[in-house]
Amino acid sequence: MSFRFELIKTNSSSKARRGRMFTAHGIVETPVFMPVGTQGSVKSVDPTDLQTMGCEIILGNTYHLYLRPGTDVIEQFRGLHRFISWNGSILTDSGGFQVFSLAKIRQINNDGVLFQSHIDGSKHLFTPEKAVEIQEKLGSDIAMSLDECTPYPVERAYAEQSVKRTIEWAKRGKMRHERRDQALFGIVQGSVFVDLRLRCLDALMEMGFDGYAIGSLSVGEPKEVMFEVLEQILPHFPENSPRYIMGVGTPEDIVEAVSLGVDMFDCVLPTRNARNGTLFTSFGKINIKKNEFVRDENPIDPLCSCYTCRNFSRAYLRHLYVSRELLSYRLNTIHNLHYYLELFRQIRKAIEQDCYEDWKRNFYKRRGET
Amino acid sequence: MSFRFELIKTNSSSKARRGRMFTAHGIVETPVFMPVGTQGSVKSVDPTDLQTMGCEIILGNTYHLYLRPGTDVIEQFRGLHRFISWNGSILTDSGGFQVFSLAKIRQINNDGVLFQSHIDGSKHLFTPEKAVEIQEKLGSDIAMSLDECTPYPVERAYAEQSVKRTIEWAKRGKMRHERRDQALFGIVQGSVFVDLRLRCLDALMEMGFDGYAIGSLSVGEPKEVMFEVLEQILPHFPENSPRYIMGVGTPEDIVEAVSLGVDMFDCVLPTRNARNGTLFTSFGKINIKKNEFVRDENPIDPLCSCYTCRNFSRAYLRHLYVSRELLSYRLNTIHNLHYYLELFRQIRKAIEQDCYEDWKRNFYKRRGET
Repeated sequence: MSFRFELIKTNSSSKARRGRMFTAHGIVETPVFMPVGTQGSVKSVDPTDLQTMGCEIILGNTYHLYLRPGTDVIEQFRGLHRFISWNGSILTDSGGFQVFSLAKIRQINNDGVLFQSHIDGSKHLFTPEKAVEIQEKLGSDIAMSLDECTPYPVERAYAEQSVKRTIEWAKRGKMRHERRDQALFGIVQGSVFVDLRLRCLDALMEMGFDGYAIGSLSVGEPKEVMFEVLEQILPHFPENSPRYIMGVGTPEDIVEAVSLGVDMFDCVLPTRNARNGTLFTSFGKINIKKNEFVRDENPIDPLCSCYTCRNFSRAYLRHLYVSRELLSYRLNTIHNLHYYLELFRQIRKAIEQDCYEDWKRNFYKRRGET
Repeated sequence: MSFRFELIKTNSSSKARRGRMFTAHGIVETPVFMPVGTQGSVKSVDPTDLQTMGCEIILGNTYHLYLRPGTDVIEQFRGLHRFISWNGSILTDSGGFQVFSLAKIRQINNDGVLFQSHIDGSKHLFTPEKAVEIQEKLGSDIAMSLDECTPYPVERAYAEQSVKRTIEWAKRGKMRHERRDQALFGIVQGSVFVDLRLRCLDALMEMGFDGYAIGSLSVGEPKEVMFEVLEQILPHFPENSPRYIMGVGTPEDIVEAVSLGVDMFDCVLPTRNARNGTLFTSFGKINIKKNEFVRDENPIDPLCSCYTCRNFSRAYLRHLYVSRELLSYRLNTIHNLHYYLELFRQIRKAIEQDCYEDWKRNFYKRRGET
């Protein structure tokens, strides 16, 4: 089955969109949050946990999986789904972001990126063709084109160069892409320069991708700048394709980006914060290690219906955290992921009922932010 | 409801016993294995996991829980069951073993043990009365008398002294014990000196306990010596009370101890080994980190029906282990605990069918040990 996106409803008072993706592994309701399963595992939870939470799609990192266990191992298992025992949808990134952020880059030129593994120092070359080939072997439902990421701040000339390269690489990746059961998304670069972003988007739209991602935002620029860029560029995206903002973000970032018309999100925040004891609630964040929770018999969030909140007190969760018990990571992660997935259920419902802006006001009100 | 033990069946060709304990939290079929939940958590698994595996009783460590989160916190929660959200039975040890093995002992005399916390160096005194009081506050279903553990090897004179102290402390603890819904067990000390063990046992039997434990075995003495001691002393234990060998052991140790008439076991082996990648199977142990498993599509044990074996390959489990993914600890622990609990289900069935010795031969045969 080939990939398809259906726009179900747009909001009258904002640009929020309610949609549905059909992938080779099922239906994904949008706006959607994709938990990050970097090395083939969403840290500390298992596939049954994810299913129970109502997760429909996870993200896998091509860079990590290519290095370990290696593409050939996963190919032998007929793809990542069977290797990790996950029957929902999977999106894989291109590996580009990790090459730029984790690996020691030896050389970047128009052909591709030569880098050294952060694990054992071995040398590897990622070309746009190779990024697509690896993802075809991983068998993800949605693959991403190799792009050149930019840091913030960045010179306009550098951003312009990276846009040029990103377009060229997207073209080469698309040429190589063969799997009919796998969608291929293009990535819009251009840092905070709106005209560069639009130039990149136009070129990608001309080639025609199954979806369009926005890279190199939320990389240090002020929030206003991020939302300004999004507001300026999103109206130019094709209406009937999903829009994915990579690596974003906090609940607040998400709530805003949805109202500007973004459909897809991924972020390590819920899983990483869980491991640091930072827990999301309807009234804001708390850190479970605080002394005030020593005797607290309440659940993390009285409004939450996750496994952790249904069964355990803040006092017990604090005890697990300060005692460095492994169960702490699991229970905290279940809660934080449930929080994110529930947030998106609420977002989707609010868009369906055409009351997204009201819902948003209420979201901030509960946190004491008006 | 007060504690009761029912001897259901004894084996005709060995001393293996099939029994049943009735605690304030339900029925525990014996022989039984008690997973160790040192700090109020069986490491890396949650109460639902334990329930799913058919676990009926877990062990909590008084020493750890007393120091953190503190007896008063758990008392506020009306006991350990509610604090950790476990509705099955709980046995707590007396804290003695940890005081002797983990803490810096400041002073031991007939009154009790003065020690320093391994966490923050704070000073505490455990007396036999206090060990009982703490366990009454923890609200475990089975409490243990404070005893003096001996290392191996130990001088006879020292062992004799520790037996004397253990008897005296058992008496004082029993005097203090009030909770009718909590069983109190005595602990037989005496190292490898059978006459000292029997002297200790006689004194405890005269006081009358709900069950009788054997301490300070499997502490470095040769296996033959351990089994020799067990064989000599067990026939003198009261028939209608449960017999508990503390901290034992490997599957082989357990299979032998059961045939000598032991009813209860606890050990960190399945949980600790899981975290080191050592997994128990019907054909012996394997270490999942080995290179030979890189592409192995088989489950850990094709005969195993645990969640891990039903869903994941050795290749994936190896990948999780070498990638230091938190899920590795959980999936390995689920398998190893399931292995132990399933071993006990088989043991109980074999005793019921009066074919324990046949079953035991088959157990060794599957591992290539005849």
